[in-house]
Amino acid sequence: MRLQSKLTQFSFELVAECPHTRARAGLLHTPHGTIPTPVFMPVGTQASVKGLNQRDLAEDLGVKILLANTYHLYLRPGHEAIERMGGLHRFMSWPNSILTDSGGFQVFSLSGLRQISEDGVLFHSHLNGDAHTFTPESTVDVQLALGSDILMALDECPEYPVTREYARESMLRTVRWAARGVDHWRRTAGQPVRHALFPIVQGSMFADLRCECTRALVDLDAPGYAIGGLSVGEPRPISLEMAEVTAEILPRERPRYAMGVGMPGELAEYVARGVDMMDCVLPSRNARNGYLFTSEGRVIIKHARYKEDQAPIDPACRCYTCSRYSRAYLRHLFLSGEILYAALATRHNLQRYLDIMGQIRHAIISGSFPEYLKTVRAASALAE
Amino acid sequence: MRLQSKLTQFSFELVAECPHTRARAGLLHTPHGTIPTPVFMPVGTQASVKGLNQRDLAEDLGVKILLANTYHLYLRPGHEAIERMGGLHRFMSWPNSILTDSGGFQVFSLSGLRQISEDGVLFHSHLNGDAHTFTPESTVDVQLALGSDILMALDECPEYPVTREYARESMLRTVRWAARGVDHWRRTAGQPVRHALFPIVQGSMFADLRCECTRALVDLDAPGYAIGGLSVGEPRPISLEMAEVTAEILPRERPRYAMGVGMPGELAEYVARGVDMMDCVLPSRNARNGYLFTSEGRVIIKHARYKEDQAPIDPACRCYTCSRYSRAYLRHLFLSGEILYAALATRHNLQRYLDIMGQIRHAIISGSFPEYLKTVRAASALAE
Repeated sequence: MRLQSKLTQFSFELVAECPHTRARAGLLHTPHGTIPTPVFMPVGTQASVKGLNQRDLAEDLGVKILLANTYHLYLRPGHEAIERMGGLHRFMSWPNSILTDSGGFQVFSLSGLRQISEDGVLFHSHLNGDAHTFTPESTVDVQLALGSDILMALDECPEYPVTREYARESMLRTVRWAARGVDHWRRTAGQPVRHALFPIVQGSMFADLRCECTRALVDLDAPGYAIGGLSVGEPRPISLEMAEVTAEILPRERPRYAMGVGMPGELAEYVARGVDMMDCVLPSRNARNGYLFTSEGRVIIKHARYKEDQAPIDPACRCYTCSRYSRAYLRHLFLSGEILYAALATRHNLQRYLDIMGQIRHAIISGSFPEYLKTVRAASALAE
Repeated sequence: MRLQSKLTQFSFELVAECPHTRARAGLLHTPHGTIPTPVFMPVGTQASVKGLNQRDLAEDLGVKILLANTYHLYLRPGHEAIERMGGLHRFMSWPNSILTDSGGFQVFSLSGLRQISEDGVLFHSHLNGDAHTFTPESTVDVQLALGSDILMALDECPEYPVTREYARESMLRTVRWAARGVDHWRRTAGQPVRHALFPIVQGSMFADLRCECTRALVDLDAPGYAIGGLSVGEPRPISLEMAEVTAEILPRERPRYAMGVGMPGELAEYVARGVDMMDCVLPSRNARNGYLFTSEGRVIIKHARYKEDQAPIDPACRCYTCSRYSRAYLRHLFLSGEILYAALATRHNLQRYLDIMGQIRHAIISGSFPEYLKTVRAASALAE
């Protein structure tokens, strides 16, 4: 409630466009601050980026936006409780922007048996088995209660592979759900609408279905668009192709968000295809599993070669972990099962992702993105 | 190695003594800084205070000395590896003082079957079953390799209860081991000796054996003395009695360290009996288990009453956790199994212990320690 009068309305501003690729640099204005794009958004599934506190994220890493999962927060502690406590920002003590997904992806990946109908999806809590229903309208209500800056429309994320027939049926339902979600959001969000709702493009790995879906969603004139249904097991070149055919049709002046991607070497590839926003659990999950990303390739911290290695994870990195701790110490913490390891490793991997995005943005603005992309591709080829 | 020339030699300076109790305030000068006493030392078992990084500990909490476990570090990553990497301070990036135990307590509590002989103790690693031996000389060598500021002499910590006969036999062996340890330390530590070695008083819960042990150890003219074998299952009044009879005999001008104690309400009781240093896993272990200490009593964070409680754990606390997060959010993190919970809760509980020690020291110096002790006792009685 406080600062309400100072809140900015959601908008997207293009700052630079690469003349040779589809890469763009922009500024995403939200009620909780302005975000330079392209941007990587750390994942705070249960209102917490695993192991990191507010200062680690906002001050040290400079994170301007993070993602939280509607499904998890709806089940625990509950969106109504969060609303009574002043919204998700206040609950988790987060001063910057929050994007919430619609809950659809978790319903389809976590909750076991579920029943899809035209109305919505009936699912069972992975915590206690209780039955719940998400409709295109109810997930908007949940996200409004959370107070997200960027909301997602309910979608169905089909598994991979899936028949073309099912992919089309599911995609058309996702379009109808998106229309209902956008309609409900416009009617209930109050005026002026400060946050944004993004519909999600689906269509499995069928380029023509992706195009059909995109065109239908563009008709909704939403503030931004997400590209969903990627990273579900398909070969990576197909993910990029799907993002490409989708982004080609999406309106130039609206932000585009590729959900759940990708590996460090892929970030520039998505940007080259016109993507502005990405999120992924890889930097944090891989960190916890001992898999660290560096400017010179990966470090698998448990390897014996690091036993007495006093260098930081990445000598070129400026994160707190690299400024203070050695590979040998991190290996010791990892092998000893110390929780400090997870926190330090996650900090580093997130810094790596944020640095890459910063380099990409700088390259776009300075006109050197094609060269940057070439370097990234050469490094990826070497690493294979 | 670096800064060697600036390193201070270990010494203890009395600043104030309570005329009505045995409480004292002092300054412990070590090669890695000066520590105001009475002091509570957080436990960093495996070269990590669980969940907290160097900045959290040294800068935010103001920790001047922490404890690390010789047994654990000897087994993993190994004292020789740590020595090759420049010592434990450098390995764990810790700028302030480190006290290491002798390994004895862990040998007796963790390693299953072990064989005690006059020479030392043969034990089996809890990690892989390998056989190892600690002797009074070898544990000094291990701690010298680690580069501790304060070393402990090898002792046997008998279980509770134990026969008087065994307690005396064991105590006399501990005295002989201490003499060998001190002798070995004096001969191998080099000149000038900058760190300190503390022998450990044992004797189970037999006051006369404690006295006998203390007198014998005082003859060794060590730089400081530890009171071991407490908090092994005995009733708390007995622990305090054992500390009292020991401290009465220990030389006034040497620091006294009660190992492994205690609950927040007991800290002032030990100080009142002449104790200068304490360590305990309680603040960090209880934090992880959802048990938080506050100036108004305990908070069991999982309780439903905190579900929408937006107050900090302790409104009177200045720690990062209390300055930033609500009970409701911490409860959510705890129930969700988020590792951020452990880090935030540990920070708070350690702050509480450090604050109590700060209040105690201030009371001693300002002459109000008896009144302070009265208040603490009244609060403890109320809480029972």
